[in-house]
Amino acid sequence: MALKKVNLKEKFSTFTAHWTPKIVGELNQQHVKIAKVKGDFVMHHHENEDELFFVVKGCLKIALKDQTIVLDEGEFIVIPKGVEHKPYAEEEAHILLFEPATTLNTGNAINELTVDKLDII
Amino acid sequence: MALKKVNLKEKFSTFTAHWTPKIVGELNQQHVKIAKVKGDFVMHHHENEDELFFVVKGCLKIALKDQTIVLDEGEFIVIPKGVEHKPYAEEEAHILLFEPATTLNTGNAINELTVDKLDII
Repeated sequence: MALKKVNLKEKFSTFTAHWTPKIVGELNQQHVKIAKVKGDFVMHHHENEDELFFVVKGCLKIALKDQTIVLDEGEFIVIPKGVEHKPYAEEEAHILLFEPATTLNTGNAINELTVDKLDII
Repeated sequence: MALKKVNLKEKFSTFTAHWTPKIVGELNQQHVKIAKVKGDFVMHHHENEDELFFVVKGCLKIALKDQTIVLDEGEFIVIPKGVEHKPYAEEEAHILLFEPATTLNTGNAINELTVDKLDII
């Protein structure tokens, strides 16, 4: 059993790719993931999973059907299952995600952004 | 359905008590909680729940049976179910917790620190 602390800044320093979440923790069948994001992601929803977006650095915007959420550093939002959302970032942002281990990054929208096997870092 | 972002700094500004976790988010039967901590908590474990401690500000120490984990700002650890742990902080620290909604703060150690109905803020 690994009982090792995780330093977010150190984990973020190990990769550069955008929109490729990495698993940095697991508990209660949930994953803690981090990602660097820049530019547009795809509009999608998750059938069965609520998803938490927390901004560690920069600014993340999440377009919903009827509004856009602007998350700055130290802010998070929970997107409930079934809710269409499109994350995007004008400048690179560093985000943390908390969601069930079953969650696929692009939800119902399978495309070139889909990552079906995430790295554990 | 509330779809509202949460600003951690703002939430922390609404209370001063130590060791009284507040619920700031809920997803997939898990709670996101925040707490201000200072001094000693009680050694305890959780029978069924893994627990994540993330330090937002300051320094949190977690005494285990055979070592002490030191978490600084931007660091987290997952304490697996069944593992005895005693969080403490020499100076006030601000922490975020991820854990199942069923989790009792003092786990198996019911005492004056036990909070059995958490505020939602």
